Amino acid sequence: MRTPRRITLQSSLLLTDLYQLTMLQAYLEQGMEETAVFEFFVRRLPPMRGFLMAAGLEQLLDYLERLHLSAEELDWLNESGRFSRAFVEYLERLRFTGDVHAMPEGTVFFPEEPIVRVTAPLPQAQLIETRLINLLHFQTVVASKAARSVLAAGGKPLVDFGLRRAHGAEAGLLAARASYLAGFSGTATVQAGMLFGIPVYGTMAHSFVQAHEDEVTAFEHFASAQPQDVILLIDTYDTEAAARKVVTLASRLKQKGLTIKGVRLDSGDLADHARKVRRILDEGGLPGVRIVASGNLDESALQALVAANAPIDSFAIGTCLTTSADAPYLDCAYKLQEYAGRPCRKRSEGKATWPGRKQVYRHDDAGGRIASDVVTLADEPEDGTALVQPVMRAGRRLAPPAPLSALRERAAAELARLPPPLRQLRDGPAVPVRISSALRDLAKSLDERG
Amino acid sequence: MRTPRRITLQSSLLLTDLYQLTMLQAYLEQGMEETAVFEFFVRRLPPMRGFLMAAGLEQLLDYLERLHLSAEELDWLNESGRFSRAFVEYLERLRFTGDVHAMPEGTVFFPEEPIVRVTAPLPQAQLIETRLINLLHFQTVVASKAARSVLAAGGKPLVDFGLRRAHGAEAGLLAARASYLAGFSGTATVQAGMLFGIPVYGTMAHSFVQAHEDEVTAFEHFASAQPQDVILLIDTYDTEAAARKVVTLASRLKQKGLTIKGVRLDSGDLADHARKVRRILDEGGLPGVRIVASGNLDESALQALVAANAPIDSFAIGTCLTTSADAPYLDCAYKLQEYAGRPCRKRSEGKATWPGRKQVYRHDDAGGRIASDVVTLADEPEDGTALVQPVMRAGRRLAPPAPLSALRERAAAELARLPPPLRQLRDGPAVPVRISSALRDLAKSLDERG
Repeated sequence: MRTPRRITLQSSLLLTDLYQLTMLQAYLEQGMEETAVFEFFVRRLPPMRGFLMAAGLEQLLDYLERLHLSAEELDWLNESGRFSRAFVEYLERLRFTGDVHAMPEGTVFFPEEPIVRVTAPLPQAQLIETRLINLLHFQTVVASKAARSVLAAGGKPLVDFGLRRAHGAEAGLLAARASYLAGFSGTATVQAGMLFGIPVYGTMAHSFVQAHEDEVTAFEHFASAQPQDVILLIDTYDTEAAARKVVTLASRLKQKGLTIKGVRLDSGDLADHARKVRRILDEGGLPGVRIVASGNLDESALQALVAANAPIDSFAIGTCLTTSADAPYLDCAYKLQEYAGRPCRKRSEGKATWPGRKQVYRHDDAGGRIASDVVTLADEPEDGTALVQPVMRAGRRLAPPAPLSALRERAAAELARLPPPLRQLRDGPAVPVRISSALRDLAKSLDERG
Repeated sequence: MRTPRRITLQSSLLLTDLYQLTMLQAYLEQGMEETAVFEFFVRRLPPMRGFLMAAGLEQLLDYLERLHLSAEELDWLNESGRFSRAFVEYLERLRFTGDVHAMPEGTVFFPEEPIVRVTAPLPQAQLIETRLINLLHFQTVVASKAARSVLAAGGKPLVDFGLRRAHGAEAGLLAARASYLAGFSGTATVQAGMLFGIPVYGTMAHSFVQAHEDEVTAFEHFASAQPQDVILLIDTYDTEAAARKVVTLASRLKQKGLTIKGVRLDSGDLADHARKVRRILDEGGLPGVRIVASGNLDESALQALVAANAPIDSFAIGTCLTTSADAPYLDCAYKLQEYAGRPCRKRSEGKATWPGRKQVYRHDDAGGRIASDVVTLADEPEDGTALVQPVMRAGRRLAPPAPLSALRERAAAELARLPPPLRQLRDGPAVPVRISSALRDLAKSLDERG
C-alpha cells in the first residue's frame, strides 16, 4: 500500500471558540492589527513522564495554508445576527500571512519550552488559537505516549490497533500518524495507510471464528482468502487447544502452498499463554510461526512482558495508545508573548508565563545524550543547538512537507539520545531546563511596571 | 444562531481496521452472507461510575446510510495489490441494507446491556464494526461524563469550553453535541452551533487583555464590540483589583448604554475569589453582574464549589469533559451473537459474552425511579419497559432524526429517574442487572456443545 494521498482535515474558521470571533471583531474595530507573537508550550509534565515528543506541526501548517469559510458557513454567520456584514466579509477574505517557527516533529522537549511560535497580525494570530492547540496537543499527547511504548518494547515491533476507541475519526487517523512517527511499525487503520503512507497490518476478529461452525474451518477459510498474511486469532475458546489445531492445520495448508505466518493472543495471562503456545508450535515443527499479542496493552504491560521474557514477537496496542489513557491531555497553552513590539506576561495564579519571543538551546553531554536546555530570548546569544527553527514565512511553508519516514528517523535519534533515567516509565529526575537570566530580568521588569 | 445544518462526518469504508476488509474477502469467497446479529455493549463501568448514558446513535445511522468509497479510495485499493478487482468492485457497490435496534440516545444504561443491535448480512454487519464503535463509544463516554457534571452542578448552567484539547476536530464537535444532549446549556464551539443548533457562548481570552496597554481599555473595547454579551475575564493580573475596575467601568459604560453581563474567573481558589468578587460587585452596585468560573474544572470540583456555596452563577468545563479525563474510554465491544440463526458465544478469558439477540427490560420502583433491569432473549416475554427499539430497517431510518432538544429532554428525564445512590460521584451500589434464566440456559447449552 504505497503512495500517500494528502489528507484534508477540517480547516474551517468556524472550528473555533466563539470568543476568537468576538475578540477579532473588537481588534478590528480598534484597528489593533499590529504584529503579535504567540507561543505554544506545555506547563508541566503529566505524572510518570520524563519527556514529551513534539508532533502535529505538519497538520498545523496545512491548516494555516488552507483556513477558510465555506459558502454555507458564511450564510450561517450572516444569519446568526451576531456579526456585522463587514466582519463576515473580512472573515471571507482572511488568509494567514504570518510566520511560524517550530521544533521539528519528533523532537523531545520539556515544560516551559515553546515548541511553536506564531508571528502574525494580532487578529490572525489570535483566531487560529483553538485549532492550533487542537492539532498540536493531540498528536503530541499520542507521540509522547507511543515513544514510551517504543522504549518499553525493547525493539519488538508495535502496531496501532486503536481506531475503534479513539475519540472520533480524526483522532484515529492522527493517532496512527503520531505513533508511527514515534517508532511504531504500522497501524490497522486502512485510511491512515492511504493518507500517510503508513504500513497497514491486520489479523482476524473473534467474530470470524464464531461465524464458522468450528475454529479449524475458520482458520482454513481465512488462510485461503489471505494467503500472503495468515495470522490466526487463537483465543476465542481455548488458546492452547487452538494452538494444537494450528499445528495440525499447518501441514494440510502446506500441501496447498499456504504458510501460517503467526498467531494472535488477545486475552488472559499473555506471558503464560505465549510460553505454552510457543512450546506447542515448536514441538509441532512450527518454530517460524510468530506470536502477536494484544488486549488492553500499554507501556507498563509491555515492559512487564519483555522483562518476563515472554516469547512474544510483536505487540498490537489499541485504546491505551489512542486515548493516551493514563494522561489523556497535557497542560498546554498558546499565549501572547509580545504585541506591537511590547513583551507581555500573564500573571494568573499558577499560570504565569515567560514574556517575549523565545528560543530553546540544547546542550549534550560527552556521550551525545541530552544534558540540559536553556530557554532564552530569541535574540540572546547562547551556546548549544537552537531547537526552534523557521518553517513558514508570510503564510507559506519554507520547505515541502518532510516525508513521515524522515520524521520517524528523527524521533528514533531523539529517543536514542535520552539519558537513561528518562527512558524509564516513571517521573524523572527531570532534565534541567534553565530560564536565561535575560528572560528572568525581562519578566521582573514587566512585573514591576505593573 | 439558529437552523442547524446536517453534519457530514467521515463515512468512508476505509475508516476501518484492515482485518475488516480481509475477513470480508474471506466471507465472500466462502459465500458466508447469511444474517448476522451483532450487539454493542459495555463490559464494565469505569471507576467511580454508577451508570452510563447512551449517545452517538444519530451519527451511526448517518454513517450507515452514507457509507461509501471515493474514486480516489477505490484507485488506492486497486493499487495496493492486496485485494482482487472483483472485491474492490464489490466494495464500490456495497450499501448497508440491514436493521438496527437501539436504546434511544439519552437513555441511562448499565454493563452487559446491548445498547445497539445490528442485524444484517454478515459481510456488512462485520465491516461496519470499527466506525460503529468509534462513533458510539466516544459520545457515550462524553455524555456519561457530562451527566455527572450536570448532577454535580445542582442546576447551575454548564457550558462546554473543551474544543482545544479534545482529540481532534470530530471529537470537539461530537463532545459539544454529547454534552448538550446530557444537559449542558451550550458550547463555545462555533461549528457545533452551526451543525447541531447548540447555543454558542463565549467570553474573552487573557491575550485580549494582554494585547492592550491596560486592563480597563481592554474591557472597554470588548464591551463596545460585543454590546449584547459583555463577559469580562478578570484574572489576567490581579482578580480583585480587576473587579474594582469593573465597578468603576460599569457606570462609564452605562452612559454609553452598555451593560456588563458577567465576569469570568479562570485561576486560583475559585470559591475564595468568587466571594471576594461578589462582594466587590455588590458593594459597587452591580448585583446583576454574574460570575462565570472556569479553569480545569470537572464534576468533583463543581460539587465542591456548589457545596461551599461559592457565589458562582455558571461554569465552563473544558478538557476534563471533552477528554473524559478520569475515564477516557469504556471497556466496550461489538460482538457477534448469532449467525445464520445459530446463537454464538465468545468464551475468551474475562471477555465471555451472552449469546443470541437480546432485549433489556427496565423496572421502576414505586416512585418512578430505576429499580432494576433484566437482560433477556429478544423474544422472551418479560414485564417492564423494553429499552431496545427498532430504528432502522433495510438500511433506512424508521423516523427522521429526532431534534437534539428532544434527546436532551429524554436525558433530563432519565437523570431525574436515577435512584439517589447513583446520583453521587462514586462507585455504585450498582442497579441490579439480572440475566434472564433463558439466556443463562442458552449460554450453558452452547458451552456444553463445545
